[in-house]
Amino acid sequence: MAKKAAIIMGSDSDRPIVQKAMDKLASFGIPYETHIFSAHRTPVQAAEFARSARDNGFGVLIAAAGKAAHLAGALAAQTTLPIIGIPVKSSTLDGLDALLSTVQMPSGMPVATVAIDGAENAAILAAQILALSDDALADKLIAMREDMTAAVLKKEKALQEELSAN
Amino acid sequence: MAKKAAIIMGSDSDRPIVQKAMDKLASFGIPYETHIFSAHRTPVQAAEFARSARDNGFGVLIAAAGKAAHLAGALAAQTTLPIIGIPVKSSTLDGLDALLSTVQMPSGMPVATVAIDGAENAAILAAQILALSDDALADKLIAMREDMTAAVLKKEKALQEELSAN
Amino acid sequence: MAKKAAIIMGSDSDRPIVQKAMDKLASFGIPYETHIFSAHRTPVQAAEFARSARDNGFGVLIAAAGKAAHLAGALAAQTTLPIIGIPVKSSTLDGLDALLSTVQMPSGMPVATVAIDGAENAAILAAQILALSDDALADKLIAMREDMTAAVLKKEKALQEELSAN
Amino acid sequence: MAKKAAIIMGSDSDRPIVQKAMDKLASFGIPYETHIFSAHRTPVQAAEFARSARDNGFGVLIAAAGKAAHLAGALAAQTTLPIIGIPVKSSTLDGLDALLSTVQMPSGMPVATVAIDGAENAAILAAQILALSDDALADKLIAMREDMTAAVLKKEKALQEELSAN
Amino acid sequence: MAKKAAIIMGSDSDRPIVQKAMDKLASFGIPYETHIFSAHRTPVQAAEFARSARDNGFGVLIAAAGKAAHLAGALAAQTTLPIIGIPVKSSTLDGLDALLSTVQMPSGMPVATVAIDGAENAAILAAQILALSDDALADKLIAMREDMTAAVLKKEKALQEELSAN
Amino acid sequence: MAKKAAIIMGSDSDRPIVQKAMDKLASFGIPYETHIFSAHRTPVQAAEFARSARDNGFGVLIAAAGKAAHLAGALAAQTTLPIIGIPVKSSTLDGLDALLSTVQMPSGMPVATVAIDGAENAAILAAQILALSDDALADKLIAMREDMTAAVLKKEKALQEELSAN
Amino acid sequence: MAKKAAIIMGSDSDRPIVQKAMDKLASFGIPYETHIFSAHRTPVQAAEFARSARDNGFGVLIAAAGKAAHLAGALAAQTTLPIIGIPVKSSTLDGLDALLSTVQMPSGMPVATVAIDGAENAAILAAQILALSDDALADKLIAMREDMTAAVLKKEKALQEELSAN
Amino acid sequence: MAKKAAIIMGSDSDRPIVQKAMDKLASFGIPYETHIFSAHRTPVQAAEFARSARDNGFGVLIAAAGKAAHLAGALAAQTTLPIIGIPVKSSTLDGLDALLSTVQMPSGMPVATVAIDGAENAAILAAQILALSDDALADKLIAMREDMTAAVLKKEKALQEELSAN
Repeated sequence: MAKKAAIIMGSDSDRPIVQKAMDKLASFGIPYETHIFSAHRTPVQAAEFARSARDNGFGVLIAAAGKAAHLAGALAAQTTLPIIGIPVKSSTLDGLDALLSTVQMPSGMPVATVAIDGAENAAILAAQILALSDDALADKLIAMREDMTAAVLKKEKALQEELSAN
Repeated sequence: MAKKAAIIMGSDSDRPIVQKAMDKLASFGIPYETHIFSAHRTPVQAAEFARSARDNGFGVLIAAAGKAAHLAGALAAQTTLPIIGIPVKSSTLDGLDALLSTVQMPSGMPVATVAIDGAENAAILAAQILALSDDALADKLIAMREDMTAAVLKKEKALQEELSAN
Repeated sequence: MAKKAAIIMGSDSDRPIVQKAMDKLASFGIPYETHIFSAHRTPVQAAEFARSARDNGFGVLIAAAGKAAHLAGALAAQTTLPIIGIPVKSSTLDGLDALLSTVQMPSGMPVATVAIDGAENAAILAAQILALSDDALADKLIAMREDMTAAVLKKEKALQEELSAN
Repeated sequence: MAKKAAIIMGSDSDRPIVQKAMDKLASFGIPYETHIFSAHRTPVQAAEFARSARDNGFGVLIAAAGKAAHLAGALAAQTTLPIIGIPVKSSTLDGLDALLSTVQMPSGMPVATVAIDGAENAAILAAQILALSDDALADKLIAMREDMTAAVLKKEKALQEELSAN
Repeated sequence: MAKKAAIIMGSDSDRPIVQKAMDKLASFGIPYETHIFSAHRTPVQAAEFARSARDNGFGVLIAAAGKAAHLAGALAAQTTLPIIGIPVKSSTLDGLDALLSTVQMPSGMPVATVAIDGAENAAILAAQILALSDDALADKLIAMREDMTAAVLKKEKALQEELSAN
Repeated sequence: MAKKAAIIMGSDSDRPIVQKAMDKLASFGIPYETHIFSAHRTPVQAAEFARSARDNGFGVLIAAAGKAAHLAGALAAQTTLPIIGIPVKSSTLDGLDALLSTVQMPSGMPVATVAIDGAENAAILAAQILALSDDALADKLIAMREDMTAAVLKKEKALQEELSAN
Repeated sequence: MAKKAAIIMGSDSDRPIVQKAMDKLASFGIPYETHIFSAHRTPVQAAEFARSARDNGFGVLIAAAGKAAHLAGALAAQTTLPIIGIPVKSSTLDGLDALLSTVQMPSGMPVATVAIDGAENAAILAAQILALSDDALADKLIAMREDMTAAVLKKEKALQEELSAN
Repeated sequence: MAKKAAIIMGSDSDRPIVQKAMDKLASFGIPYETHIFSAHRTPVQAAEFARSARDNGFGVLIAAAGKAAHLAGALAAQTTLPIIGIPVKSSTLDGLDALLSTVQMPSGMPVATVAIDGAENAAILAAQILALSDDALADKLIAMREDMTAAVLKKEKALQEELSAN
């Protein structure tokens, strides 16, 4: 059976960012769960979820958190599944705090960090990881890439038409 | 009985920084323990230590960690004792990563953060906290402050003598 | 008698931030005072307040200031009570100036720094410190923590219901 | 047959960093290749390598580059395999340039970024990804994690013995 | 025949910035093309455009991109024409990521970087480069400079009149 | 009688930086004093010195301090004499903390800030200020400027000779 | 006759910031001029103004500029009068570029830098400098300081009344 | 006759960096001059050099300066020739001050900025600009590029031999 993805947000205020990852996973047809677990407010539940994630059929976990964003690292400490971290911009420091708190992990405990607020990329990275053993998903990723290329080429074509019309 | 302090370092590579806190606590006669617990490598032990810290007679915990420094926050998640965080400078980013990872804690879960590599101040802050219910310790803090003042005044005096001798 | 907390703001423009600390202290039933003292405009009053704070029954001082935020340090220079610093974000540099001015204190003179605009955490840290000799307050902190956990779990539950309803 | 990993460095000056990833992959028994391809000096070869990587049996690519580190992104543009980026610290800006150039990828094109100079973590992340379809590797990761935990506990034990001996 | 300029944007969301460069080139009467090519989504087209740019009569290429802005570098890898890079500010980090990703190019592969969102200056720099072999254009640049000077002097004059009227 | 300058350092560890200001003031023949007063360790003495500085014949005060550099601001709070601040680089953050703590002063309380470790410039600025009412000193400043110009021209001449000799 | 102050802005877009300096100088009764001179667009006029400033009765020059703010330095190169620099925040980088471009002046050429957008403080610093030879102005500065202190004390009093009314 | 390049350094302490640009220009056979002109210490000479540069046969000017690096901008203000700026790292702030002071130029006055300490790239960019009207130089640039590619491929080949030998 296909491995699932999980998206964990540290606070429900991260939902608008996380929704983009949810939508993207759905568009790939990847089975996924979304949860609110805080590294600090519900550390037991966060740890338990990560610790049992492999046995529960998950292949990759996505964690979104802001400020001193410890969530991805806290999950990483409990499982050897790949963890993807989304640093979330908050009201101060323009996301730099979350980025450094997520990416600068100590040796032995990697977090695969994407751009600040980069939820869509987190979902794509999850798909890329899961696609290693899922050829249909790999094909969807290639198709998505071709769609992206086509979309840029279409915009380029429209631009040339606009410019030549002037 | 007097409450104890604990110093937790995330890695034994933090020992040179941490030693300054140990020496300072010792100079106050504050009973303390020093431990190596990693938020990520030994999360169970770190959490267990923090969770039982109050019952074990601790009044304040000091955590020293570098890079994506999650240790102080991980301890904070398990106890309502005051947690003091020492951001430790590592080989990149000049300590900014550890500082932001330590200080920018989410609402509800404060970490009392001191300067990068500020181990001595962490110990003094611990003493200030414990001194609220320990008048002898409060007197030692006042004496230390007076010694600090006297040391500056002595250097000022030596400087004036040096300058007037020229 | 229970020790009091004090919140000092450097300017009345910091009131919206400071109010969150006031509300939080009130919610714990901690007796507190709030004052406007500027490290630079009313240095005499700021120093006098800090110098006499212990004798006046205070156990911890919270200082909120922006830009080159010297207030917490100026209070620290006059008392050995624990000082909590709230760096306040102003119109430039996204709070980084206030953070560094507050946290990077020289040896001997710690300021327990919380996140930029982290007034609520400042109040909780104050409560954690005062709770060392106030078991009822310690119980309130544990209850608050349990409420926080419950609130996250409730949101998690609502999320699962929302998601399973789709 | 097991999927291979590849480590691509942008310049042979990155070799000291990259060697740590090589050693780590070797310790897991993961088949891997190491190459020097520059996003700018040998863009054709870099692109060709990435484009044919899936067909050549690779499951994950690790890219190490400094300054305006485009290598990981350039590989990502040519394949839907997961790309892991190691930002390499160079002589100015303490690694911040390489970090931002690697992690802040536009939507659609993720790079799984690890810490500055975090080559060992890049290899572990690669192993975590490949382990999703390789139970023996998954077991090695769990064993490595247990070794890490044991190593910290051993150091903790040694510390306690040292401290109690004083 | 006069050499042409080209403006390449990485995404059509960069159009508002890029338009200022288009208008400026037009004001100089410099023949130019504008294109949307993404370093990552249409790497083949971007590379092909740059590779054939010299033969197609271009003298200078302007690239505008945000976040991990690789576009200018990707073009530079394919041609020895001068490349001008415009770092575009996006929703996080205030443009610092694009600036560092554009300017910190490795040895051998320069990108002539202008200010964040500095599209007008990119066009002027392109004109300055093309003017080396185009005396009429050189004259226009001198005239533009004189206009700029005159405009400041006019504002200065208006200011003096305003102030003396008070 | 000519107004004096004063150089105040926050710690005797700042002496190597401060010495450059002392030497420069001496080279101008400006009467000056040098003192060690800490904003935090000897706040009373620092305040008293600043408060009486005007009456004691001082015209300008120079303050050198590192980390959360409050000294210049603390002096500024006690006098309306112009205060020059030298941010001193310490072991972390490359001087950025001292710069922001010195320059970002709140409205009403300026500190004339020079470059990080810019002690020589602090002395020159002091001379420029004192020279407003001291024509001989003004002449010395003009002479120094001419010497600086001559020194560059001499180096330029030597360079041209070196290059033409090759 | 009293020495004049001059405020130079690099662009009329800096007027809203500069106006605060104008109003403050006016409130002190300091004779002043305001000009628009650009270091780059009208370098001749800027240089000429600075070169003749001493002879024209100026005692201090205030320069306001944003981005790569060279104006203060360009004026400093032409006169030994004290130059006060106001770094102006522009649309990117939150004022950091202007701050560093203004304050990090090379040895021999100080610029007395105030906070980002700190126009009011620039005027006060100018007044402090001019007051060294103008006792009436010195008295006004002391009065302003007393007013500032009184204003804070009044707000403190109002706060206490508000709080005790609750 | 072929247009010349000029390299201007703000101080002879920049010579080690500048030498790399000199060597590179020499390797292309580009006629060039090297000068020491300071934007602040010899503003008249710097301005005069730039103002007459076009008439004196120069096609491009390279400026190297550190800290508040105004030199490139000061030259740009006096000529419409393309100006290339090399931000030079100094003892504080890791080159960030020079980078921002060089690249963040106001509208109308571009400086083609290369990486911090990127003197070799500055020379290559100058060659690219001059090559627009010099086919032999254009060929040299293409040859250099091919050499760079060959050098990487050679290192890649050596690496493969080293690895297969193990």
